[in-house]
Amino acid sequence: MTPRQRFLAACRCRPVDRPPVWLLRQAGRYMAEYRAVRARHSLLDICRTPALAAEVTITAAERLGVDAAIIFADLLLPAAPLGLELEFAAGEGPRLSPPLRTAEQIARLPEQWGGALDCVSEAIARVRAHFGPGGLPVIGFAGAPFTLASYLIEGGGSRNFIETKRLLHAQPAAWDELMRKLTAGLAGFLEQQAAAGADALHLFDSWAGALSPDDYRRAVLPHTRRLVELAGAAGIPVIYFSTGAAGFLEAVAETGAAVLGLDWRISLSAAWERLSRYVQPPPALQGNLDPALLLAGPEAACAAARAMLAQARGRSGYIFNLGHGILPETPVETVQALIRCVRGD
Amino acid sequence: MTPRQRFLAACRCRPVDRPPVWLLRQAGRYMAEYRAVRARHSLLDICRTPALAAEVTITAAERLGVDAAIIFADLLLPAAPLGLELEFAAGEGPRLSPPLRTAEQIARLPEQWGGALDCVSEAIARVRAHFGPGGLPVIGFAGAPFTLASYLIEGGGSRNFIETKRLLHAQPAAWDELMRKLTAGLAGFLEQQAAAGADALHLFDSWAGALSPDDYRRAVLPHTRRLVELAGAAGIPVIYFSTGAAGFLEAVAETGAAVLGLDWRISLSAAWERLSRYVQPPPALQGNLDPALLLAGPEAACAAARAMLAQARGRSGYIFNLGHGILPETPVETVQALIRCVRGD
Repeated sequence: MTPRQRFLAACRCRPVDRPPVWLLRQAGRYMAEYRAVRARHSLLDICRTPALAAEVTITAAERLGVDAAIIFADLLLPAAPLGLELEFAAGEGPRLSPPLRTAEQIARLPEQWGGALDCVSEAIARVRAHFGPGGLPVIGFAGAPFTLASYLIEGGGSRNFIETKRLLHAQPAAWDELMRKLTAGLAGFLEQQAAAGADALHLFDSWAGALSPDDYRRAVLPHTRRLVELAGAAGIPVIYFSTGAAGFLEAVAETGAAVLGLDWRISLSAAWERLSRYVQPPPALQGNLDPALLLAGPEAACAAARAMLAQARGRSGYIFNLGHGILPETPVETVQALIRCVRGD
Repeated sequence: MTPRQRFLAACRCRPVDRPPVWLLRQAGRYMAEYRAVRARHSLLDICRTPALAAEVTITAAERLGVDAAIIFADLLLPAAPLGLELEFAAGEGPRLSPPLRTAEQIARLPEQWGGALDCVSEAIARVRAHFGPGGLPVIGFAGAPFTLASYLIEGGGSRNFIETKRLLHAQPAAWDELMRKLTAGLAGFLEQQAAAGADALHLFDSWAGALSPDDYRRAVLPHTRRLVELAGAAGIPVIYFSTGAAGFLEAVAETGAAVLGLDWRISLSAAWERLSRYVQPPPALQGNLDPALLLAGPEAACAAARAMLAQARGRSGYIFNLGHGILPETPVETVQALIRCVRGD
């Protein structure tokens, strides 16, 4: 099988010769080639310059020998069409201003983002052209509505998501309006990525685990399900990644995503068992090695990877990945050893 | 029923007139009385001065009208008998030095802590004497071995627990030795608290959710189970609180704790369903309202509390609590409204 055939078959729970593999944040600071580009350009410059975004995407995928390339992008690029200023202070996380806190601010948000994020689809088209039809599949990229909303409301990362939850609970109509508008904007953004040649679309709901199951179901799931439906209308698979959501995995499955990306806080076999009891056929799974294992040396990482592959043996519908992004301190040699181990080289 | 009868009956899954209620971090910065004490004394001074620790413990429990008082203490007090320097820098988390990284350091750790933490049992004796046999039960307090180990190894709080996981994976013998020694020391500490009059013992495994199920089972569970066994030998119930562990709740139940404290990332009904399928009889549950709800106003908090109580209706073995500590920004009036709502006043 070609990598594209292997990857798309796994997304659709069809038989594969071996599980496809790629890694969250495979283009990142752990890799010297990426650091060399970052030395000359800011994170946002790379994201907003299709030639650079394509370059780091392609370099990482080829250097590692993985089965898919995810477009290099940032979850917060939609800040621009939404009218928020975005900056990354050195050594700190992102800062967005002004934070979105009131119904009036939400009422003024646009529902469609026009060509403001064309940089991402242009980068996808470049990567697609580079690999060609027989080469690696390209995965599009966007934040899920809840995670994007939480950044906009908090004005950056958050420990306790106090303002997000305050809006959600105390102003439910404003919350729903915000989620509806973000869903509409994200749908257009993902459609552009699909039209540019993305083979699959990856939604990051990195902060879903900040919520209780009830709040997730009531205030997040309906919008997320709608976005998955709109994004999947082009006929390509949607991968929905969440973290900390093992307590309500069944609700996560109700998004309707073809593939669920899992963090490492649940075993693949427990996830399959719970999902199979809840929905037939269960979605494909992607994950979920603890990225910290890559800092304990290649033997520890490969032993854990083999244990995961053993849980997946005999199943179609599995994509090997980490449970979260590669940590910047990770030796690239350990990452390469992991990929060889998963590929069975 | 007296509060003590109600609380102990719930811990043992026996019938109660209504679910008992207390709140994680009920003595804390959200409360003016506590802030007044903190204005004159450091956190560690309060912990190390039995009269002050007893005062803030008692004041909070009486002001709120809860059914139990947890002794005011800090998870990191064992740093002293273990030979690490502990300080709290203003606005930052705890700092421990030197961080514990090598087998040689671990070999030098004491297994018994002697009288170094007598301050905690003395504070418990004072609270017990204040309330008397007909008054509130007193809950003892300690970190669980994994969470304590992670602070010692990282030298403070951590985002990715890289050094902890590196030791766990790359030096398994040193890891086991560390966990064995911490378990022995914690067992002695908890025995002292029981002897001083604690009615129950609360173990905080706040960072359990940093681990994969496999790592938890292999490297943490055996030691935690041993500690629960030793701590419970005095015949009083052990409450084991973990966060982020909903993906491996079944393994958490294998600690053997009489009560499992849950964070808000799983519903009570889902937890009961999974545990009942796994072990008979299932342990009692404690939790698990999202503390951020207390910042969305009394109506939102009480509505969510009523939904939780509805899930618990008809079950013995339930203690109402939050899923994590009260946030410092919380209005005390909202906390009081929540307690009234749960008590059915």
